[in-house]
Amino acid sequence: MKHVPFTDVKLSDNFWAPRVETNRQTTLDIQYNHLIETGRIAGLDPRYKPGDHTAHHPFWDSDIAKWMETAAYALATQPDPELEAKLDAVIEKFAELQGDDGYTNSWITAVEPSKRFANLRDTHELYCAGHLIEAAVAHFRATGKRHFLDIVCRYADYIDSVFGRDEGKLRGYPGHEEIELALVKLFDVTGNERYLRLAEYFIDERGQQPHYFDIEARRRGEDPAAWRHKSYEYNQSHVPVREQSHVVGHAVRAMYLYCGMADIARLTGDTGLVDACERIWSDVTRRHLYLTGGIGQSRTNEGFTKTYDLPEETAYCETCAAIGLVLWNHRMLQLTGEGRFADCMERGLYNGTISGVSLTGDRFFYDNPLASAGGHHRQEWFNCACCPGNISRLIASVSGFYYSVTDDAVWIHLYGAGEAHVSVAGCQVKIKQGTAYPWDGDVTISVNPEHSADFGLALRIPGWCRRAELSVNGQPLEGVVARKGYVTVKRRWRSGDTLVLALEMPVERMYANPKVRSTNGKVALQRGPVVYCLEQVDNPFTPLNRVALPRASRLTSTFEGSLLGGVVTLSGEAMLIEDDGDQALYRSTPIPLRPAPIKLVPYCVWDNREPGEMLVWLREQA
Amino acid sequence: MKHVPFTDVKLSDNFWAPRVETNRQTTLDIQYNHLIETGRIAGLDPRYKPGDHTAHHPFWDSDIAKWMETAAYALATQPDPELEAKLDAVIEKFAELQGDDGYTNSWITAVEPSKRFANLRDTHELYCAGHLIEAAVAHFRATGKRHFLDIVCRYADYIDSVFGRDEGKLRGYPGHEEIELALVKLFDVTGNERYLRLAEYFIDERGQQPHYFDIEARRRGEDPAAWRHKSYEYNQSHVPVREQSHVVGHAVRAMYLYCGMADIARLTGDTGLVDACERIWSDVTRRHLYLTGGIGQSRTNEGFTKTYDLPEETAYCETCAAIGLVLWNHRMLQLTGEGRFADCMERGLYNGTISGVSLTGDRFFYDNPLASAGGHHRQEWFNCACCPGNISRLIASVSGFYYSVTDDAVWIHLYGAGEAHVSVAGCQVKIKQGTAYPWDGDVTISVNPEHSADFGLALRIPGWCRRAELSVNGQPLEGVVARKGYVTVKRRWRSGDTLVLALEMPVERMYANPKVRSTNGKVALQRGPVVYCLEQVDNPFTPLNRVALPRASRLTSTFEGSLLGGVVTLSGEAMLIEDDGDQALYRSTPIPLRPAPIKLVPYCVWDNREPGEMLVWLREQA
Repeated sequence: MKHVPFTDVKLSDNFWAPRVETNRQTTLDIQYNHLIETGRIAGLDPRYKPGDHTAHHPFWDSDIAKWMETAAYALATQPDPELEAKLDAVIEKFAELQGDDGYTNSWITAVEPSKRFANLRDTHELYCAGHLIEAAVAHFRATGKRHFLDIVCRYADYIDSVFGRDEGKLRGYPGHEEIELALVKLFDVTGNERYLRLAEYFIDERGQQPHYFDIEARRRGEDPAAWRHKSYEYNQSHVPVREQSHVVGHAVRAMYLYCGMADIARLTGDTGLVDACERIWSDVTRRHLYLTGGIGQSRTNEGFTKTYDLPEETAYCETCAAIGLVLWNHRMLQLTGEGRFADCMERGLYNGTISGVSLTGDRFFYDNPLASAGGHHRQEWFNCACCPGNISRLIASVSGFYYSVTDDAVWIHLYGAGEAHVSVAGCQVKIKQGTAYPWDGDVTISVNPEHSADFGLALRIPGWCRRAELSVNGQPLEGVVARKGYVTVKRRWRSGDTLVLALEMPVERMYANPKVRSTNGKVALQRGPVVYCLEQVDNPFTPLNRVALPRASRLTSTFEGSLLGGVVTLSGEAMLIEDDGDQALYRSTPIPLRPAPIKLVPYCVWDNREPGEMLVWLREQA
Repeated sequence: MKHVPFTDVKLSDNFWAPRVETNRQTTLDIQYNHLIETGRIAGLDPRYKPGDHTAHHPFWDSDIAKWMETAAYALATQPDPELEAKLDAVIEKFAELQGDDGYTNSWITAVEPSKRFANLRDTHELYCAGHLIEAAVAHFRATGKRHFLDIVCRYADYIDSVFGRDEGKLRGYPGHEEIELALVKLFDVTGNERYLRLAEYFIDERGQQPHYFDIEARRRGEDPAAWRHKSYEYNQSHVPVREQSHVVGHAVRAMYLYCGMADIARLTGDTGLVDACERIWSDVTRRHLYLTGGIGQSRTNEGFTKTYDLPEETAYCETCAAIGLVLWNHRMLQLTGEGRFADCMERGLYNGTISGVSLTGDRFFYDNPLASAGGHHRQEWFNCACCPGNISRLIASVSGFYYSVTDDAVWIHLYGAGEAHVSVAGCQVKIKQGTAYPWDGDVTISVNPEHSADFGLALRIPGWCRRAELSVNGQPLEGVVARKGYVTVKRRWRSGDTLVLALEMPVERMYANPKVRSTNGKVALQRGPVVYCLEQVDNPFTPLNRVALPRASRLTSTFEGSLLGGVVTLSGEAMLIEDDGDQALYRSTPIPLRPAPIKLVPYCVWDNREPGEMLVWLREQA
């Protein structure tokens, strides 16, 4: 299965389309300004000396690269000479930074030139290289210009000359994964197998004994045991990747690794890697996943903790980690065609990733907790600014998650108003979706092949949907059963054929596995793929958890076109513990309850109005 | 009102008496061994050089002093030549350590001799001095020997010569309060007003402008703003103490300060100090107090956070802080004769202080959370070992909290089997309590004056008690109303007179103010002064919060003589969320419940059996 690139899918829905536009018009601009103002761009100058302008940061190159990747995505869909000129100027800076041998990293070049590849465990050289490669691939695809691609090929060739199993090479691999998946992209676009082999090497060498990070630490004169993260689980190098079954360590690192594993598996049919991905996926989704698609419970390691440990207010849920989860699931979906991966991807897309940016496109969450006592708000920028650029490149290319093609079928993974151009069974087909998804489950799909043609149309029946109906040209299809999350309609398609898919989308009360301590006795509300939350601005009482939702309460959903860009809100009657003021702290009589209306908004748009408390999981009155 | 010293009250109940004995026989011994093994005693040697034996710690002197104070209390009630010899030897070490000028601090003497009184904000010189004084006063009272008392008088005289408002003196005061209350004890025992004046000076100078800790920091060449605790609220010196209304900062420091304020007020009738204590007391008990009498919510500052912020699992509730609360409330009680202070003192005594030591007397909690996921256990000792010695000295002198006398009345604050000898209205009276308190609310009090005499007997009607009956010599007293928590029976008492007090002691369901986020929808169980908890060892399911207690469930209490030293347990039927194994993490159908018996034990004895989870606040099914 091959995904249809974002350039061939144009969204016109009210959820993503405005965000793509805001991202292009606002976010790209403000992020560029932050890169300038913080000295990140200035730091690319090979004449830069520590102390110039501002502090320099070991992985600022990647912040710049993510902006470049986003800019390339923007150029791919809409010409913008000014943006293109800006981008070209930054590419030129990387060209000037690049050493004669191809090495391209501003921090090492300016600050620690003697430490090149001396501490893969902690520095982010290969991680930055990965993002630079991703940006260059995006730029080449968007513009056809080879200049940037040539720069990263030279750098990748140099990296390949340094690392590997051959005599004289370093047996190292990145402390922060990312280059693996980037090298596969570079292979995809160049066809040069060298990059695929290097990615494979990085994946397979990871966690082998004797452990490279031990060797490397001793070479630096350090005791490997003195490392602050203690266990190599932190960067998933505790055992070779094929032996891994549990999700561990830093969440973003983990996700990028699994993306790379899935990529290699796609190209090589390596079942050992698929099996490991499947085991780990099962562990993540059964024991470590927040309802929002957020992952990585703890701030301490920016990553995973114990199974079923899913605290709400302290949930770290880094935006980058949710993005990584989406990217990995997208790859698993291409590999297997199974809807459970699309379900997971969709959960992340509509909730825990996109919460990472304000509707205005200029403020960002680094962490995305599921409850807030009122102190959590989006920031304009971060010193460690991985998330803003990451959510930005995701939004710019989000339409690439919607469709795939196989030899004889078109797959629709996600629903949303818009148009796609796909090629299947030797035929160009324009597919148009008319729908208010994710606010409504009715989807009208018109199929317009350039000539009538036989192929299948595989429609995802989301995991959240209990009842779906389907008709073709007005004729209901009876007895249609989804297989692994997809219903495939095979027929000779003619221009103007219309499918109508009706996905029942009631408000669902969601319950967590009782092994999850923090959510016992609580309920969360979800409608379609969208997870809801209570915000203080709509529910003026504090603490918000004074409210409990009776199990029998009827909940109604209403589309409010002028609220938060147009969202469906939920409302119903709950029971509120009366605030009796500054009375005794403890009493032996229960506190009176009174009925109170509550209103919930999609989690992803919280903190876009007056600041206040927020709650996803509500106490339930059973 | 003057409290009856612990030496005049002998307890024979099953709660405190065995603990006093274990404390004397086991805890004193093992603590002495820890003092030896960790090099604390060795560090007293004036010839000690840093690097000898073991690391030396800025406030180890206070650990030793608390052991000495406890040993003195033990000697006061039971001769023990071996213990007395040990104690004399340690006193001799302090004598050798003491400088010609009277200065007595092992850390400064050995490690930083040039830093004497150079950093009152952070070092613990005056705090250690305070504990040394308390120990010496206890020793003098127990043995009549003046040697130790003379040492601390010399030290106190020296301190008095250094600090004060006179020309040439330092305008400093301790960063960690403690010496204030100790100086009052020293005044009590010596009658030397100099110590009282010095205590008053320390209290009144605190928080004055220009701020001494600013001046002192600049003198050290430091920027006062660079201090890690940021605000002088940390040590309650943000404003002068008379202007304070809210409890702030490090909890133990705060409590010791308030003790000192109450002490001064008792001796000087200073209403400004009483008013401040009252305002702060109201803030603590209405907004910052755990049901267990624990205080200081946060590990970060070992102290107070925001109002109504009372998280359970992360509750810091240092044992020392609860002890400080008891000490302060005992003083407020003497000052006012109001039962609310006795209620607060009793809450601390039966719950959040005594939880700090195992029933075996050899393991200790530093922090006393109200919930545990299974990882919280008592330790043998701590590097920062303030708590073990503190709980030890509290236990050794606990009977001193039971009685007070005024000119014409005997006050009984606490109930418990035992005997007291008091002097009231010129008459010696032996008072005997027969009761199974705290496990039962029936108390038989026999009053035996050496000759018949007129005086009042003020009996506390605890705040937790909704209905009390009282009879004298078999005659019910009708229409007796408690005033400020006490019922006073005035009559001519004759030997053999018997009062019977029946305090109704049902299981009470306790609810917290709904402003407390963490306990909304939850209930805790209390019976008499004893707060209960669920332990995994009695309730074999995990997580423990899978259980919810229906509001209508009947709870029964049973005395189990062979369990945990003899305690009343509570049992009832709750509803348990069924564990359905490693199923889907999220589902849209409620998880089935089943009835399940639960059993609760007193909070103070948790973690004395197999390790596991613990929970004070249970979800309630309303």
